[in-house]
Amino acid sequence: MRDYKFCLDFKVRDYECDMEGIVNNATYMNYLEHARHEFFHTLGIDFAEMTNRGVFMVVTKAELEYKASLKSGDVFKVCVDVERESKLRIAFIQDIYRSDGKLVLKGRVTGTAVNSKGRPELPAELEQAFGI
Amino acid sequence: MRDYKFCLDFKVRDYECDMEGIVNNATYMNYLEHARHEFFHTLGIDFAEMTNRGVFMVVTKAELEYKASLKSGDVFKVCVDVERESKLRIAFIQDIYRSDGKLVLKGRVTGTAVNSKGRPELPAELEQAFGI
Amino acid sequence: MRDYKFCLDFKVRDYECDMEGIVNNATYMNYLEHARHEFFHTLGIDFAEMTNRGVFMVVTKAELEYKASLKSGDVFKVCVDVERESKLRIAFIQDIYRSDGKLVLKGRVTGTAVNSKGRPELPAELEQAFGI
Amino acid sequence: MRDYKFCLDFKVRDYECDMEGIVNNATYMNYLEHARHEFFHTLGIDFAEMTNRGVFMVVTKAELEYKASLKSGDVFKVCVDVERESKLRIAFIQDIYRSDGKLVLKGRVTGTAVNSKGRPELPAELEQAFGI
Repeated sequence: MRDYKFCLDFKVRDYECDMEGIVNNATYMNYLEHARHEFFHTLGIDFAEMTNRGVFMVVTKAELEYKASLKSGDVFKVCVDVERESKLRIAFIQDIYRSDGKLVLKGRVTGTAVNSKGRPELPAELEQAFGI
Repeated sequence: MRDYKFCLDFKVRDYECDMEGIVNNATYMNYLEHARHEFFHTLGIDFAEMTNRGVFMVVTKAELEYKASLKSGDVFKVCVDVERESKLRIAFIQDIYRSDGKLVLKGRVTGTAVNSKGRPELPAELEQAFGI
Repeated sequence: MRDYKFCLDFKVRDYECDMEGIVNNATYMNYLEHARHEFFHTLGIDFAEMTNRGVFMVVTKAELEYKASLKSGDVFKVCVDVERESKLRIAFIQDIYRSDGKLVLKGRVTGTAVNSKGRPELPAELEQAFGI
Repeated sequence: MRDYKFCLDFKVRDYECDMEGIVNNATYMNYLEHARHEFFHTLGIDFAEMTNRGVFMVVTKAELEYKASLKSGDVFKVCVDVERESKLRIAFIQDIYRSDGKLVLKGRVTGTAVNSKGRPELPAELEQAFGI
């Protein structure tokens, strides 16, 4: 397991499982979002407050490799690291590990922010918070 | 707009939108899954029936490029094409277009099937159905 | 089947089913909301536009009787009728019928609107639209 | 705050909020289900294991009174008590409290179990576990 800036503990909730008895593939995107937003909080960034101010953080790309399935009762952690991808884009490396250390998902979610005119613009506060 | 094997019409449901007033990024995975399963039905493949028989179709990779946001009231279509990626893997090219023709999302979802022993195995019926 | 002001057709999406292979009980609330909002549209009321103006329509009570389960592939309709419940509250009678006529769910969802000061206040436009 | 048999701590996840910036009304059903299933675990009942054995626990009625809204960042607990409602039905009293003690939701969810023939039948193990 590599180094990450932040990890958050979760437990599977049964309503997140589909008829195959495993967590539905879309639900992992929920997990990744929640871990990112909690990571933001540790840096003093409040997603809801930014949204209220008209600064919209949006996902521009998501690449997910599903390595194993989570199922009812599983405990896991979602880890986050961050990289500058370009002038306007930040990439979040987000990997999910089951409590026994098994790698469940390797993810890379790229995002930007959109200003009140609908144009991509990375606010200085984000650059500073992420240190990138 | 390229050729696809199948397209399905949708309309945004308000509960799919998050506090930014746009469809949450995880919801697109729901749209893609529903379009795939409806595509399967046109080929005589019933996801629920296969699951009951112990043949689990699973997603192994998802690559999504978010090009524009959907919001309340938007009508859109999710299109599907299919490619053989390897002996065990099938790739679904899945793009989303808003009713005005705007490309909303470019997706590539790769999947396989897992047999009753938990090993990847692509049933002949899937190979035949997809013609790949 | 009694008279309703509005009915909307749906088809179960597989991601809405949980490990029991039937639509998860929370998902019915999504169906009911979507049917209400589409009903509102037929009356000239746009939920998103009202939200943007700071008029928040909120649910204050939901009573749901689950009569039968929906499962993969099922086609159904969600019907809506409306009643004035009190000075500040509107009740939506919302029943779900499977395509074979089977009653799936009997619901009653009560709501009000909250003004910019966070106080319940039913705008005249709602009273007029619903004719109640 | 009355006595409950079980309470579980939660924190709002941003994807659970809708365009009004508050937790969507359907999401409370997810919270209630997760709290029930975790309560079951403390009694030695595993929902997934019962489902695999063909014993389906299903909700027959849900009555929810929404008293206040949860929003981004809110911490809350979902409490559970249990009552025998009839020979075949168990009622779960489920109330949600925000971390400042504010009552957010009063709920009563009634359920039964369905045997392999699709008939309601409350297994002795459930009666014993709940002590009712």
